[in-house]
Amino acid sequence: MDQRETTRLLRQVASGEVGVDDAVQRLRQAPFEDLGFAKLDLHRGLRQGIPEVVYGSGKTPEQIRAITAALLAAGQHAVLITRLETDAAAELEAGLDTGMGLEYFPEARIAVAGTMPPPDGMGRIVIATGGTSDQPVAEEAAITAQALGNEIVRLYDVGVAGLHRLLSHTDEIMDASVIIVLAGMEGALASVVAGLADCPVIAVPTSVGYGASYSGLAALLSMLNSCASGVSVVNIDNGFGAGYLASMINHMGVAK
Amino acid sequence: MDQRETTRLLRQVASGEVGVDDAVQRLRQAPFEDLGFAKLDLHRGLRQGIPEVVYGSGKTPEQIRAITAALLAAGQHAVLITRLETDAAAELEAGLDTGMGLEYFPEARIAVAGTMPPPDGMGRIVIATGGTSDQPVAEEAAITAQALGNEIVRLYDVGVAGLHRLLSHTDEIMDASVIIVLAGMEGALASVVAGLADCPVIAVPTSVGYGASYSGLAALLSMLNSCASGVSVVNIDNGFGAGYLASMINHMGVAK
Amino acid sequence: MDQRETTRLLRQVASGEVGVDDAVQRLRQAPFEDLGFAKLDLHRGLRQGIPEVVYGSGKTPEQIRAITAALLAAGQHAVLITRLETDAAAELEAGLDTGMGLEYFPEARIAVAGTMPPPDGMGRIVIATGGTSDQPVAEEAAITAQALGNEIVRLYDVGVAGLHRLLSHTDEIMDASVIIVLAGMEGALASVVAGLADCPVIAVPTSVGYGASYSGLAALLSMLNSCASGVSVVNIDNGFGAGYLASMINHMGVAK
Amino acid sequence: MDQRETTRLLRQVASGEVGVDDAVQRLRQAPFEDLGFAKLDLHRGLRQGIPEVVYGSGKTPEQIRAITAALLAAGQHAVLITRLETDAAAELEAGLDTGMGLEYFPEARIAVAGTMPPPDGMGRIVIATGGTSDQPVAEEAAITAQALGNEIVRLYDVGVAGLHRLLSHTDEIMDASVIIVLAGMEGALASVVAGLADCPVIAVPTSVGYGASYSGLAALLSMLNSCASGVSVVNIDNGFGAGYLASMINHMGVAK
Amino acid sequence: MDQRETTRLLRQVASGEVGVDDAVQRLRQAPFEDLGFAKLDLHRGLRQGIPEVVYGSGKTPEQIRAITAALLAAGQHAVLITRLETDAAAELEAGLDTGMGLEYFPEARIAVAGTMPPPDGMGRIVIATGGTSDQPVAEEAAITAQALGNEIVRLYDVGVAGLHRLLSHTDEIMDASVIIVLAGMEGALASVVAGLADCPVIAVPTSVGYGASYSGLAALLSMLNSCASGVSVVNIDNGFGAGYLASMINHMGVAK
Amino acid sequence: MDQRETTRLLRQVASGEVGVDDAVQRLRQAPFEDLGFAKLDLHRGLRQGIPEVVYGSGKTPEQIRAITAALLAAGQHAVLITRLETDAAAELEAGLDTGMGLEYFPEARIAVAGTMPPPDGMGRIVIATGGTSDQPVAEEAAITAQALGNEIVRLYDVGVAGLHRLLSHTDEIMDASVIIVLAGMEGALASVVAGLADCPVIAVPTSVGYGASYSGLAALLSMLNSCASGVSVVNIDNGFGAGYLASMINHMGVAK
Amino acid sequence: MDQRETTRLLRQVASGEVGVDDAVQRLRQAPFEDLGFAKLDLHRGLRQGIPEVVYGSGKTPEQIRAITAALLAAGQHAVLITRLETDAAAELEAGLDTGMGLEYFPEARIAVAGTMPPPDGMGRIVIATGGTSDQPVAEEAAITAQALGNEIVRLYDVGVAGLHRLLSHTDEIMDASVIIVLAGMEGALASVVAGLADCPVIAVPTSVGYGASYSGLAALLSMLNSCASGVSVVNIDNGFGAGYLASMINHMGVAK
Amino acid sequence: MDQRETTRLLRQVASGEVGVDDAVQRLRQAPFEDLGFAKLDLHRGLRQGIPEVVYGSGKTPEQIRAITAALLAAGQHAVLITRLETDAAAELEAGLDTGMGLEYFPEARIAVAGTMPPPDGMGRIVIATGGTSDQPVAEEAAITAQALGNEIVRLYDVGVAGLHRLLSHTDEIMDASVIIVLAGMEGALASVVAGLADCPVIAVPTSVGYGASYSGLAALLSMLNSCASGVSVVNIDNGFGAGYLASMINHMGVAK
Repeated sequence: MDQRETTRLLRQVASGEVGVDDAVQRLRQAPFEDLGFAKLDLHRGLRQGIPEVVYGSGKTPEQIRAITAALLAAGQHAVLITRLETDAAAELEAGLDTGMGLEYFPEARIAVAGTMPPPDGMGRIVIATGGTSDQPVAEEAAITAQALGNEIVRLYDVGVAGLHRLLSHTDEIMDASVIIVLAGMEGALASVVAGLADCPVIAVPTSVGYGASYSGLAALLSMLNSCASGVSVVNIDNGFGAGYLASMINHMGVAK
Repeated sequence: MDQRETTRLLRQVASGEVGVDDAVQRLRQAPFEDLGFAKLDLHRGLRQGIPEVVYGSGKTPEQIRAITAALLAAGQHAVLITRLETDAAAELEAGLDTGMGLEYFPEARIAVAGTMPPPDGMGRIVIATGGTSDQPVAEEAAITAQALGNEIVRLYDVGVAGLHRLLSHTDEIMDASVIIVLAGMEGALASVVAGLADCPVIAVPTSVGYGASYSGLAALLSMLNSCASGVSVVNIDNGFGAGYLASMINHMGVAK
Repeated sequence: MDQRETTRLLRQVASGEVGVDDAVQRLRQAPFEDLGFAKLDLHRGLRQGIPEVVYGSGKTPEQIRAITAALLAAGQHAVLITRLETDAAAELEAGLDTGMGLEYFPEARIAVAGTMPPPDGMGRIVIATGGTSDQPVAEEAAITAQALGNEIVRLYDVGVAGLHRLLSHTDEIMDASVIIVLAGMEGALASVVAGLADCPVIAVPTSVGYGASYSGLAALLSMLNSCASGVSVVNIDNGFGAGYLASMINHMGVAK
Repeated sequence: MDQRETTRLLRQVASGEVGVDDAVQRLRQAPFEDLGFAKLDLHRGLRQGIPEVVYGSGKTPEQIRAITAALLAAGQHAVLITRLETDAAAELEAGLDTGMGLEYFPEARIAVAGTMPPPDGMGRIVIATGGTSDQPVAEEAAITAQALGNEIVRLYDVGVAGLHRLLSHTDEIMDASVIIVLAGMEGALASVVAGLADCPVIAVPTSVGYGASYSGLAALLSMLNSCASGVSVVNIDNGFGAGYLASMINHMGVAK
Repeated sequence: MDQRETTRLLRQVASGEVGVDDAVQRLRQAPFEDLGFAKLDLHRGLRQGIPEVVYGSGKTPEQIRAITAALLAAGQHAVLITRLETDAAAELEAGLDTGMGLEYFPEARIAVAGTMPPPDGMGRIVIATGGTSDQPVAEEAAITAQALGNEIVRLYDVGVAGLHRLLSHTDEIMDASVIIVLAGMEGALASVVAGLADCPVIAVPTSVGYGASYSGLAALLSMLNSCASGVSVVNIDNGFGAGYLASMINHMGVAK
Repeated sequence: MDQRETTRLLRQVASGEVGVDDAVQRLRQAPFEDLGFAKLDLHRGLRQGIPEVVYGSGKTPEQIRAITAALLAAGQHAVLITRLETDAAAELEAGLDTGMGLEYFPEARIAVAGTMPPPDGMGRIVIATGGTSDQPVAEEAAITAQALGNEIVRLYDVGVAGLHRLLSHTDEIMDASVIIVLAGMEGALASVVAGLADCPVIAVPTSVGYGASYSGLAALLSMLNSCASGVSVVNIDNGFGAGYLASMINHMGVAK
Repeated sequence: MDQRETTRLLRQVASGEVGVDDAVQRLRQAPFEDLGFAKLDLHRGLRQGIPEVVYGSGKTPEQIRAITAALLAAGQHAVLITRLETDAAAELEAGLDTGMGLEYFPEARIAVAGTMPPPDGMGRIVIATGGTSDQPVAEEAAITAQALGNEIVRLYDVGVAGLHRLLSHTDEIMDASVIIVLAGMEGALASVVAGLADCPVIAVPTSVGYGASYSGLAALLSMLNSCASGVSVVNIDNGFGAGYLASMINHMGVAK
Repeated sequence: MDQRETTRLLRQVASGEVGVDDAVQRLRQAPFEDLGFAKLDLHRGLRQGIPEVVYGSGKTPEQIRAITAALLAAGQHAVLITRLETDAAAELEAGLDTGMGLEYFPEARIAVAGTMPPPDGMGRIVIATGGTSDQPVAEEAAITAQALGNEIVRLYDVGVAGLHRLLSHTDEIMDASVIIVLAGMEGALASVVAGLADCPVIAVPTSVGYGASYSGLAALLSMLNSCASGVSVVNIDNGFGAGYLASMINHMGVAK
């Protein structure tokens, strides 16, 4: 099944000419979708029933619109578009069909097309940051996880230098299903939170800091060496990856 | 409650003088146990019903024996002793009460005192290694996870240079609840496995390699940059950390 | 033979005053050409019958034109001008003699003057990339190799996180004469491809990525540590070097 | 086909019970050989007619003997055993069948079982070192390439600080089919040789040096930045990899 | 004043031939003492009335004895000998005059000759460690500070992964005059302690850890990036430097 | 006590409705102040009687104004606003109540609201720089320390390459209570100054330099390895941190 | 002698009121000159009779003019102004007295005020570069050395990849008094030149290159590890330092 | 001229059969000497009249003896054998002809065969070290320079933390012809000495130190960034290179 065939099929779906079930059946047999400018892996989305993710950076609004339409047509309820700057989001929105809802989250640089799903995970995902500068990466994680069907609790600016700020949220931490900790500079928050919690902690070093923070290296090494159990680490500033993994864990016990 | 009081209490429990429920109640109120040479955090174990872990390295057999006895007396069913060399294990075993079972796993350098629990997690933890040299760290992860109540599937020596070796195990990978991937050198296995799987992947860089592997740095950077979603990373050679986290995730949907 | 003499000679060749054979003979004896702003090594080109390469960056259109004219006059069939930005290419083209063909490849930032040679290598050079962002470096390799007389097969966006995309091209990989693999982030593609192939694999780390990719360092280390045999590595983003070396290998068994 | 079946088949071949053609046929269908302690990829060897390589480090003499016997029985003419220390080689030799020839090269730490093949490549592989300390890695490359059917020319101790030593070998360099350059410290030799040669140059940084050589890092970076075309780099001290790749290139134009 | 003269003077002091005041007067004018194997800076000690420090590593017992005797003779009440291994300490003690008291602290690898001074600082120096493995460096700091006239409070094994262990010592932290925090691995303790305290915090990264702790680098970077005010850092494992500086600060308001 | 309540209280204080003592009493019980965009830790300031510090970077003039007003209303005599660029300072000043004094120090990028306190430390803080380029960071340290009640002596451009420049200030160095040394490039000044002084030396590596200075890394390593006693180090370019710590030390013997 | 006094003295010299000898005598006694914005070390210049150097970067044209005038008035024949961009040079030139000659070298970013001295060194300084991109740093070295009284031989673009280009200049290399070698990328030229020469070689790594050249780090390490004797290294891109040191060496045997 | 011929010639020289002049004449025409285990470059020695250097590490006593004899026979007055451990020196001495003088310097690990030449340089070479641990490398430099005909002044243990120790030697520093500065840890001594001196300073970082000295890296970076003019740097611990270069500079004005 080459690109033209796939495009034709998706258009037929969009126009109602071909039923979704039928199309899904045919797509299941094609290992992946080659639209020339991007290869879509439709299998994972279809198989798991979770939103498909489109990496927005470096794609034109037209390309994003086409991919999004194709995915929604193929049965996705929501499409997550990441790394989308404000300008691109405005352009994207301007050209959309009125029927296709689109919500843009500027701080997270994420747009969600379709319907934001209700939370259906096991519990709540707590997202804690060391300082206010970590917030954009934290929001990327938060919106990602929310769009994947999770309830989020935000604990922002609870860095270890003022421990009482963190300790006043001990309950939320103890009750969390998964915790994402974001911190730049010395990255100490991950260990402290993990010491208080009973659940998996995903540590995200951020590039916040200066001098010997080396754009997140200090936080990265700090988090990798955490003396607390249950901590694992993703790439510097990788809010999306943390949100995605957190959602995966928070849906462990949930029937797909 | 100081050290002497705690020791007395534990001895009373061991001798039956004080009931376990009673002791647990009293211990719950003491934040931690100070034995002079080691502080035990009895809360986590008691609260969660999972085995307590003793870091064996740098402790004498006498100390390990005392801690282990105290923990078993306090109601633990199993005690995991990590980083225990063969000699130390032999010495430890020699001085043990006959009643206290002790199994030693030399490759993993782990001993388990008490009763190895039956698997009670959601699914299976798959442990995959790139080469045979990664096996000791893999076994540390495996025995840790097993002692914490998980069923383990070992896929050893399935490095990416011979892809068919890995692909012949696609079923195990697709069915896994959590996957631990261990690899040194270029660490590529984590991305490949995560691309095949639908579950969280915990990547463990190992110090296997030479030259520009820089004792695991190449694998560490490779894994942190994985283009596959759902991957997080722990410290180089941290088999225990990976096994512990994997167990945590594999028990997400299970009533504690 | 100083610069003025050489310029005079090349002008005489250009005007037909001196025959090409004659000029070649005289040039063979001069070890290299000093045009003031650039030293041309005419020996290699003449001896090997392969296109001469001009490094365009930092040279004015006039300088490039002069060098190119001199080289074509001296008997070269094609001249490869690398690292040439779009603006400079337009300027260069504007001032060219109509007789001198010039084709510009903007993504590769390469212009080819003269006649693009037909493929005369042993087999095909496969060029595989992990993601779409690697494409500019890949095209630099591709156009370089094509201008040196090779047939190219492009396998773009076949990163290891979606293994089926790569595996659907197993035939092209098995049949290749040489393979160039370009990848940023974790650079795992090189090992996986080399495991599937029987031919030399030239790995090009790209600076694609963020955070702990360290502008190609993660991919570089990963590729240097490849556990697959037959892999060697060139500098980060060095598409030209990879294309040049691939051509060299693909012409091993071919009479010069 | 599990391990027992394979072992049985190989024994039948060894005893003449099953013909080699038959066995080869059956083995072609089994993706790989699992002997428990090592997985053999019989495909590549059989398909390409080149010696199989056994990584000796960390294997017992018994294991090496079993693998070697199996491979020879399966039709290999030569088996290359790398990273084999002198003691292990002596032990290995002691237990061998008299019929199975074994030659040990202590400096290269390589043993060759079976019959060393005659050179059947396109030309000669030149191996050049910067200093005498690079010799062990150079010999690993040399014996590897020789065992894979190549003629070797050794140019040892021709470092750039005494350029006349290198220049007195210009002929060998100009005539080479492939060149392997090994150097520690500043690694400058690779660029100089590549500037003199018309063929692919494989650069091997060695860990020779002290202080700011950082165990081969200075040479590695130097070689990756070579301003000469046609140079690619393998891992620090990776003599085997260089020899293997050089052989691959030297057999490009040769019918398999 | 050359070496022989100085030695003679010191011997005269030791024998009572020259009065201490007299000798001190003469020494004040000589900028430093050259004993051939070591140059003593007698000024600082005399001027400040604090113990002189002898770096024991690499000196023979005879040399240490001579220096110590000279210093005590010159009016020092205590001489601190650092980096002194157990064997060397035993040898040193064996040859000492009975009149010269010598106390050896094996874990700190420090010997104190003369009289350990009473605490005369402003307040107490708290020394906190993340784990038990940090203890030797902590003891080096503790004995140094004690020998310089400070009262020490030890808070060992209060790492951030079990925050309650640290919080149970909030009073000691709030009341400290200076705090020395020692931690390896992620080094997070410094920030947490500094957030609780009102006094200067001297952070000592230790080389405790493995993998990506890089022998203290992770802790060093973490501490340099502390988001808490009042933290400064000394070299990895530099217990002596921390103890010396802490004493300096703790004597700020005390008349010299 | 939520944000609205706190704001209301602060306004009541500002208007005289609630007495300062009363408000302080209430605020003491609230662990921290959450204004939405910033959490204020009022405890430290109130308890210690020292100026509160507001990190200006990334805050709007309105936010800074609100925080500053709240702090002054709560009884602070001075508020230090750091990392405030010239433009932001002008904007801030424009909107201020006339009654609230504001002085801006452009080189230090610091504004001080309220009344600059008189020096009340034990002695003088000497601030020495290696070169004129270190001056902005030095001024950040100087104004910070001055605003915290210290007398400052500036010794700028006294780098070690012209030792007489430094030695002509030996008196100021000998008499200092604390010394802050700022240097980029080789950072040698810290050791030289510490060798001359009897007081704590806080070393601040600056990012001044080029090439192998690596933006302050060379100076940082140099300072961490200082062979002089009494030296500790803060982050690269961390003038504020050095000034804050110096003030803390200079007020050690002073009743709070 | 404070700043005002010095300025007055220099003005008196400029106006003829005070004789140069007299002024020099007075200046010899003052350790250094403090003009507020810059401290001049007049001693070295006067004592050694060599041009004074003014670091132009970050100084206003007025400041440079004042310093230059003062220096020329104090008896200097030439003043070297380094790191002076083209715009600043034009501004500087506009405001100069007509009597004060000023020559600007844009590629070297150096201006020379006064009279360029005739060569009075022992021999010639050869300056060799690997490629044309190294030229600006090379010119900084060349103009510096020329202004300090040296004859310069430029060998540009003689990188090791085309060895014949270098070898055709063997005579100049053999006859040199000192050689400065500038190279980026792999930095191999220093070793090769040093192997051909009998004189001191000053190696200057340049930041020319991309990818794993790491802005001159590869060249720096390569040069530090040179296997040739007589090579020493200065900072990356430090053309001035190399020119200054080369002049110093080239004037070793010359009476000052 | 092959190896056998050369050996024969040298033996004839040794036995008096061939005159030295004759042999020298013949050897001048042979570019270099290949003894199988080492290539001797007899040209430089003969041409320059300076001692030949033999790198002792990794050579057997027999090999060293043969090379030394050949060199002395060829007219060298002294042969410098570097990196020669005490045991090897004893063995070497045992087998020597009585006529061939051999002096061994254990701290420098250097032996000198033949006659130590009288100083014939322009002035004195000062060798300064920061601490006593730098002494072995300093002695390597000192003996090298002495054997090459230089007068040495040793200033050991004059580190910058006790500046008066260095300043008391200002005269020696001011009078030096060349200065070698060796320092580990922070390496500050090079800048301070260069600021005091008027002559070339060769900086040798040593691997002395611990923690963040990173085996000489801190000192290396510090020295490369020296703000003093006239400083250049050699590899970490490269005492020989520094002594060799210093001698070269100290003989600049001396007729060869």
